[in-house]
Amino acid sequence: MICENISVSEEGHLLFAGMDTVALAEKYQTPLYLMDEDRIRKNCRTYVEAFQKYFGEGALACYASKAASFKQICRIVTEEGMGLDVVSSGEICTALAAGVSLEKAFFHSNNKTDADIAYAMENGIGYFVVDNAEELERIAEIAGEKHLTQKLLLRLTPGIDTHTYEAVNTGKVDSKFGTAIETGQAKEMVRHALQLKNIELSGFHCHIGSQVFDSDTFIRSSKIMLGFIAEVKKDLGFVAKKLDLGGGYGVRYVESHPVIDIAENIKEVAACIKAECESLGIAVPDILMEPGRSIVADAGMTLYTAGTVKRITGYKNYVSIDGGMTDNPRFALYGSEYTVEAANKMREAKTFLCDVVGRCCESGDIIQKNVRMPESIQRGDTVAVLTTGAYNYAMASHYNRLPKPPIVMLKGGQDYLAVRRETIEDMVRYDV
Amino acid sequence: MICENISVSEEGHLLFAGMDTVALAEKYQTPLYLMDEDRIRKNCRTYVEAFQKYFGEGALACYASKAASFKQICRIVTEEGMGLDVVSSGEICTALAAGVSLEKAFFHSNNKTDADIAYAMENGIGYFVVDNAEELERIAEIAGEKHLTQKLLLRLTPGIDTHTYEAVNTGKVDSKFGTAIETGQAKEMVRHALQLKNIELSGFHCHIGSQVFDSDTFIRSSKIMLGFIAEVKKDLGFVAKKLDLGGGYGVRYVESHPVIDIAENIKEVAACIKAECESLGIAVPDILMEPGRSIVADAGMTLYTAGTVKRITGYKNYVSIDGGMTDNPRFALYGSEYTVEAANKMREAKTFLCDVVGRCCESGDIIQKNVRMPESIQRGDTVAVLTTGAYNYAMASHYNRLPKPPIVMLKGGQDYLAVRRETIEDMVRYDV
Repeated sequence: MICENISVSEEGHLLFAGMDTVALAEKYQTPLYLMDEDRIRKNCRTYVEAFQKYFGEGALACYASKAASFKQICRIVTEEGMGLDVVSSGEICTALAAGVSLEKAFFHSNNKTDADIAYAMENGIGYFVVDNAEELERIAEIAGEKHLTQKLLLRLTPGIDTHTYEAVNTGKVDSKFGTAIETGQAKEMVRHALQLKNIELSGFHCHIGSQVFDSDTFIRSSKIMLGFIAEVKKDLGFVAKKLDLGGGYGVRYVESHPVIDIAENIKEVAACIKAECESLGIAVPDILMEPGRSIVADAGMTLYTAGTVKRITGYKNYVSIDGGMTDNPRFALYGSEYTVEAANKMREAKTFLCDVVGRCCESGDIIQKNVRMPESIQRGDTVAVLTTGAYNYAMASHYNRLPKPPIVMLKGGQDYLAVRRETIEDMVRYDV
Repeated sequence: MICENISVSEEGHLLFAGMDTVALAEKYQTPLYLMDEDRIRKNCRTYVEAFQKYFGEGALACYASKAASFKQICRIVTEEGMGLDVVSSGEICTALAAGVSLEKAFFHSNNKTDADIAYAMENGIGYFVVDNAEELERIAEIAGEKHLTQKLLLRLTPGIDTHTYEAVNTGKVDSKFGTAIETGQAKEMVRHALQLKNIELSGFHCHIGSQVFDSDTFIRSSKIMLGFIAEVKKDLGFVAKKLDLGGGYGVRYVESHPVIDIAENIKEVAACIKAECESLGIAVPDILMEPGRSIVADAGMTLYTAGTVKRITGYKNYVSIDGGMTDNPRFALYGSEYTVEAANKMREAKTFLCDVVGRCCESGDIIQKNVRMPESIQRGDTVAVLTTGAYNYAMASHYNRLPKPPIVMLKGGQDYLAVRRETIEDMVRYDV
């Protein structure tokens, strides 16, 4: 199995976090998001412990809320000692509603509105991660109006092309995010930041893309960033206290994806950073990273009920499920790979080649193509899509006026509700 | 301008339905969906009148709710004499909440759950459009339990490849939708339907894709469908009363898209159908069509406020807006074309080439690439994206916990709210 929290019972049922998914589908109905709380905590600890061990005291791993933001996840990652990466007032509101302080929260986004900036400051946001010079000025102005000194990092683009899928590749120079080092605009912004009142520049941030499977990418970006830190120390006399490397490590969606030792990778990155700082003659800054996907993806699973099973003689087979691109738009958006199982027929041979498709009136509503299912797959069977903890609930829509599924947490053999199921009446809640 | 409801004021403001978009953005804030009620009614009338004139009394144009489903749109299209195409219990619930009877409603979907089927029947759905043999049996069984006779159409795949973008191409044999004529499965399903109790087969449905710009596609599909109708009359003695051709005509998103005379196209299709029926020796069935996009797309516009304007020396320019793939995921999904304007600077020369990008923390959050904007575009300007009435609000998500914009209707120079703005507090409404 692609993750250790997945197994199969004697009667051939798929188990998630040791619990019978067929029974859970029966209890909560489908579609249904499951999240393995123990796995989330384990993933948090991998980062938190490796950060402490290899980067030392000031280092901080922040959970990237955008992967999945709801009250209970904010509580869990905070209990595990992580900071929080937020990208909107909505994510800030979620953290606050969960009772989480924003002291260790970092506010990202390529476009923060004035209202966002004011709201974040009023609620004591730890740091802004400033995307560009214009935003820097607005933050300084609004902080001035509020008579406070706002701490911040500047988001820079190190100019690395990670060769991952374009939509998740965000560190190259030509990007809507950040300010480019290569063009001289980054250094200009530092100079400007040092002159502005009501702000305190703490350091720099970069983000080189998602689904990173080796330490090489972080090493390359940290070298560029440390070089920049040395340069601004020499030229502007500014000593960066923090360096946020963004992102996190990749996640296995299918068997062919590599198994990655995150702690070992962090160790390598730490060794490289220390050596680089020594050679540059600068102090090692506090290192930050922002894992989201690798905290929650393999802690998630989505359960559906199979509906129509279509055998088009001489063409193709389709298994329709009672959800689709509404609760998981990642195949529609990126052609993302997923592992799909017939949860109540795990001991049957998988000889039925089919596309697993959603219920939306749209041809592109596909969960996965060329899936192997048992020959007996039929209406009423439970279909499980694995590794859906990241960017599924977060990206869910109400297309076709389909209500969003609930999120049920699994912890030590118990299940509890974290987000309730939306009803069809909820669909007209805001209609006049 | 791409549609006659768009113009420019003397002071250089973009007008929509004759109203100043800059003033509307100020009044309701951004992001903001606008809908031109008069245009919706005009679009409805084009279909309704052409249907009556060329197809006669029994013909019916149904509004495809999936393009945009909310209470007020259900009321408007119903007042204009259209039927309703619904695809889920959520869309049915919306129609009911709007006070619309389901007598002229057709329930589509490749995968209706048992709960959907029961809910639709309990609320007096006019017709089911049955996707496949399995669903046919469930409908007959549930109708039996409820002691009623359910009218229905069978959705067939005529096997036409419209060469439009794959995700909106739904009439070919290899499709998750419908039952194939070519493989003999359609005829087998008719035979089966005629034997089942508690159902009444009224005719057939097909859908050959979206964004159709000529009558040729409808003519080709109607010929295949009429041939099938003649065949089942001859072989099974079944006379189809209704033929639903699905879909509707294409919409102009950009200047290069063709202008289409819908009434003229319907006239051509009608003439062809009459000739074909005569040559086949069958009565002309009641013709149905399901326009969605062509009813609402050009009646919609989205207003944003520009945030960051990024000039990356030697690379590219970016204009960030305060919405994005959350309120309009169509570029992210299909690379869809849109016309984008600086609504408060319509009289300035457009010399600034840029990508207009959303505020989500995702590189793929793009509204349109290579847009020409005024050189002076800056934070605070109003940005308008045209022709967003279809599949924008309908497909909106809460990614990055961004609340959905409101829908404001424009009618005869007045504006009123149809769907209220979601707040950041609404984002945690269902969280435990």
